[in-house]
Amino acid sequence: MRSVFYISDHTGITTDKLGTALLGKFPNVEFRKESFPFADTPAKISQALLKVKNRFFVEGKKPIIISSVLNPELRQLLVVDYAESLDFFEAFLGRLEHALECEATLDSSRSAHGIGNEENYNHRIDAIHFSLENDDGVSCKHYDDADIVIVGVSRVGKTPTSIYLAVNYGVKVANYPLAETDLRSDCLPKALIPYQLKLFGLSIESERLHNIRSHRLPNTKYSQLNTCINEIQAAERMMNNCGIPYLNTSHKSIEEISVAMMQLVKLKRQF
Amino acid sequence: MRSVFYISDHTGITTDKLGTALLGKFPNVEFRKESFPFADTPAKISQALLKVKNRFFVEGKKPIIISSVLNPELRQLLVVDYAESLDFFEAFLGRLEHALECEATLDSSRSAHGIGNEENYNHRIDAIHFSLENDDGVSCKHYDDADIVIVGVSRVGKTPTSIYLAVNYGVKVANYPLAETDLRSDCLPKALIPYQLKLFGLSIESERLHNIRSHRLPNTKYSQLNTCINEIQAAERMMNNCGIPYLNTSHKSIEEISVAMMQLVKLKRQF
Repeated sequence: MRSVFYISDHTGITTDKLGTALLGKFPNVEFRKESFPFADTPAKISQALLKVKNRFFVEGKKPIIISSVLNPELRQLLVVDYAESLDFFEAFLGRLEHALECEATLDSSRSAHGIGNEENYNHRIDAIHFSLENDDGVSCKHYDDADIVIVGVSRVGKTPTSIYLAVNYGVKVANYPLAETDLRSDCLPKALIPYQLKLFGLSIESERLHNIRSHRLPNTKYSQLNTCINEIQAAERMMNNCGIPYLNTSHKSIEEISVAMMQLVKLKRQF
Repeated sequence: MRSVFYISDHTGITTDKLGTALLGKFPNVEFRKESFPFADTPAKISQALLKVKNRFFVEGKKPIIISSVLNPELRQLLVVDYAESLDFFEAFLGRLEHALECEATLDSSRSAHGIGNEENYNHRIDAIHFSLENDDGVSCKHYDDADIVIVGVSRVGKTPTSIYLAVNYGVKVANYPLAETDLRSDCLPKALIPYQLKLFGLSIESERLHNIRSHRLPNTKYSQLNTCINEIQAAERMMNNCGIPYLNTSHKSIEEISVAMMQLVKLKRQF
């Protein structure tokens, strides 16, 4: 068991990602984590360090500090002999300044997770609202404005992927569920024909879909393995027939699906 | 203008965050970015490096490589004399191995943005569906299952915040809009009384709300500055009267609102 302290002068989202990526490589160590976001004054840093120090005395092992503190004077406070301090800006900012031959700004309003450019930010919020309002094929009348339209059978992962793309990349995503009536033919549902070039499909292994649907509505026709097999086969036949690119989501997280999809259709971050 | 290449053996989301945080500190440099996710073989790395090298010859300045490549042999390929290479694992993994006195695993299935623990992952997907289904006060009948219920006037930021919390922290969030009828009294709407301890409010400056609403429905009573002032005053009066903690969202991104909210109500990541 080792203690880990996340200390940041802003949201701490960068340190959080960094920590998750790093600590995950030590599956045999159990970590006890504590976060100190918005630690942007010497007093707040000291308050966090007091906890670190206490933990060191109690546990007899140096806690790990994973930090991103922009101000060099505050950052200096984190170099203590009772903890192992990994600071993100410390590691990279100097090297980047050297490579770019100019100094980094210490303007904290330029934080990675602040509002930043207001127009960009508003675009992203609009994308979230768009994706919610165009979830689950509620209506196709706004598909002209969509950057991409995800199609697939129920519970293949359309909604979480749409939401993830909107939140993280400002992409306007609509999604359309391929229902039983749509799957009777190998042709596209009429409503989708005008948007053929924007369509992207998700597919899945039938066993996995059966598990997901059973978790939601156990012992129903909807969740039966046979229903899943038939729907997936029909959906893949349609997508192959109509030249719609698609991905299998069975063993992929929403992050993996989103990045792979953006790479396949050459979609860029919209903010 | 400097070229930046993001190279990762997985989704590249960590490098993306890292890059955004770092490059944002150089507002006077324009960056031309290109991403190579899933570069997990020597061939894919070489393909990316070919582009880097070309860019170096064309521009006469070393491109910046921001990378997270777990496999040390692949990582070694990125150390080239025609680019400045900042590798995330290179910077921290060795130091962490030393501090923890054990070796990092190279098992790529433990990537920070993969499915990881399936139960945790399913919980997160459930949280996304929950938050969508309990958006905008559609119904209060599932509030028992909510981790938190966000209240506030229309367009104060409830929906994007709810979605962000669900996607990134697996928190089940419901949100309830305080409508004109709710705001006639300083008491909680009846439907919310059983959930008083789960309530968290969002408020906003009237000018900002006026701008946001005007962007959506210009020249309506809904978007008038006076309407905004009245609704916000009534909502704040109610929240003060009922002891509901609240945050002002005017100059905060959804990331900042979410982290501040979690810190205030001591809500933890749910996966």
